[in-house]
Amino acid sequence: MALNRLSRFGIISVRTSKCTSFVRLFSGSAPLSSQQPVGFVGLGLMGNHMARNLIKKGYPLIVYDVSKDAVEGLRKDGATVAASPADVAAATNNIVSMLPESVHVETVYAGDNGIFSKLQKGSLLIDSSTIDPAVSQTMAQVAESKGATFVDAPVSGGVNAARDALLTFMVGGSDAGFSAAKAYLELMGKNVVHCGPVGTGQAAKICNNMLLGISMIGTSETMNLGMKFMFPKLLAKILNMSSGRCWSSEVYNPVPGVVDGVPSSNNYQGGFGSALMAKDLGLAQSAATASKSATPLGSAAHQIYRTMVNHGFGGKDFSSAFKFLQGDEKK
Amino acid sequence: MALNRLSRFGIISVRTSKCTSFVRLFSGSAPLSSQQPVGFVGLGLMGNHMARNLIKKGYPLIVYDVSKDAVEGLRKDGATVAASPADVAAATNNIVSMLPESVHVETVYAGDNGIFSKLQKGSLLIDSSTIDPAVSQTMAQVAESKGATFVDAPVSGGVNAARDALLTFMVGGSDAGFSAAKAYLELMGKNVVHCGPVGTGQAAKICNNMLLGISMIGTSETMNLGMKFMFPKLLAKILNMSSGRCWSSEVYNPVPGVVDGVPSSNNYQGGFGSALMAKDLGLAQSAATASKSATPLGSAAHQIYRTMVNHGFGGKDFSSAFKFLQGDEKK
Repeated sequence: MALNRLSRFGIISVRTSKCTSFVRLFSGSAPLSSQQPVGFVGLGLMGNHMARNLIKKGYPLIVYDVSKDAVEGLRKDGATVAASPADVAAATNNIVSMLPESVHVETVYAGDNGIFSKLQKGSLLIDSSTIDPAVSQTMAQVAESKGATFVDAPVSGGVNAARDALLTFMVGGSDAGFSAAKAYLELMGKNVVHCGPVGTGQAAKICNNMLLGISMIGTSETMNLGMKFMFPKLLAKILNMSSGRCWSSEVYNPVPGVVDGVPSSNNYQGGFGSALMAKDLGLAQSAATASKSATPLGSAAHQIYRTMVNHGFGGKDFSSAFKFLQGDEKK
Repeated sequence: MALNRLSRFGIISVRTSKCTSFVRLFSGSAPLSSQQPVGFVGLGLMGNHMARNLIKKGYPLIVYDVSKDAVEGLRKDGATVAASPADVAAATNNIVSMLPESVHVETVYAGDNGIFSKLQKGSLLIDSSTIDPAVSQTMAQVAESKGATFVDAPVSGGVNAARDALLTFMVGGSDAGFSAAKAYLELMGKNVVHCGPVGTGQAAKICNNMLLGISMIGTSETMNLGMKFMFPKLLAKILNMSSGRCWSSEVYNPVPGVVDGVPSSNNYQGGFGSALMAKDLGLAQSAATASKSATPLGSAAHQIYRTMVNHGFGGKDFSSAFKFLQGDEKK
């Protein structure tokens, strides 16, 4: 069995990277602690919590985000705000990024005023975004050509896990890169797993989310059908003591009222949006197409989530598949 | 929310039942123990273990099966062999049945020489087959018209669970019927759950197996895709500590060598055949169609298992979906 066939996926073009002199823009400021400063780019729903956990653990933080509100929140908590990803790279040689999609990673790293434009030799770049494995590989190649190390480290676990430093990181990178990244990732999560070379963190993540997307729709269909016969809590209890059980049925049941404190019991607010699930299932389909893997249910799940997005479910938690399949049926 | 819409599913026609006098054919034989004798019809892979557990617990058994080999095995273990289901009913008023499909249940209960033809008033009929809920309801109606009680009690758990009396029974029936049946079911399983009126045991079972069929194919696809990037044991470990985890990934992984002692590690022999899964997914689709429930992945899973049966996978364990999707790809 041949492993590591990432090269099959082809290499996408990288935006022009501008290599400038290594100016440490913030080198004049006094360190806030004995720890080396860490850069953080991408302060969204997940990133802002992850960044705060680094501050809590005593690391001076240099942050960047396109949203002024997002950076203001971190500035109040003690972070230094940089004017661009390039300036983050000029100020520190350990950088974490948490961005929505492949295109944002390409822009933040390889675009004008990107990290690569002011990258310091010996830098460690940790990208926790969930993106195309081929993009991770391309970023790693550019980083290596500049004497730096890049690892992909996408996460499992939602906003609450990010807040409570309970994330699982799936890391793709060299042994040395993994060891170096692990020291930082352990500050933001509870599990840090080395999956293999660069790109395998992404592969593990999109595989997990493909199975998750399938399981959530499967659970939604099953609950919908079974509720025609019995109360949903009883049905969930039976499934969860039987062979149909899965994470979606046990701890994140899509039927309101079956599990307390999950998005389905809060009108599908918060959690993991259907649009993000559609994106991840699209990445899985791209990987499946490139590697000639048959994924009939992954493909169907992708289309269902894409249709959900087209029907206004994009911002609702992905467990709203239950509501989408149910429709407005009179019960 | 309206529950118990089983009547929507329509009532199938029942074969002519011949009501004869209540002759206790075996009333002359001395009881083997102080327990009342129990009848058992259907001594296949599951039924023969369930019947043996009743013998082990001290119950005299009166058995019937179309297979002479099957009844001979039980005779050696102390069971009395009846010439027909009717004769089982004439000899005892507590009967368990474990049959492959709806048509066999109709024949055994309502056919010529069926149980109903010599049914004793006050009898308890426990059917552990997995069949169309509407057939269970029809059998229950006929039983009631003859002064007997019928419950549907399909099982979760495979051949090993049947052997070790670790099955889960999902029971549909009246409160009194459930209580009476529970005393016998506890001798053959570890969990006995009351789902609601007659037919709801079947509904719970086919819901569970629909989610199981979806999860197994989803796990198979995911493992197939992920193995292009990393070793299967590492991939399974990551899935099982993440939100993609399910029974099929954790304890019944379809990739040979990931979990010891499951069919995938034994050339997909034993276990739960793909043909039976195709049958159960067909029952789920019938229920979904009748109740106007959207089950897109359940429908796709049904078609995949049906295609597997057409390609010679019918007798292999249902985890062979992994091999079917993989095909003969050179790795």
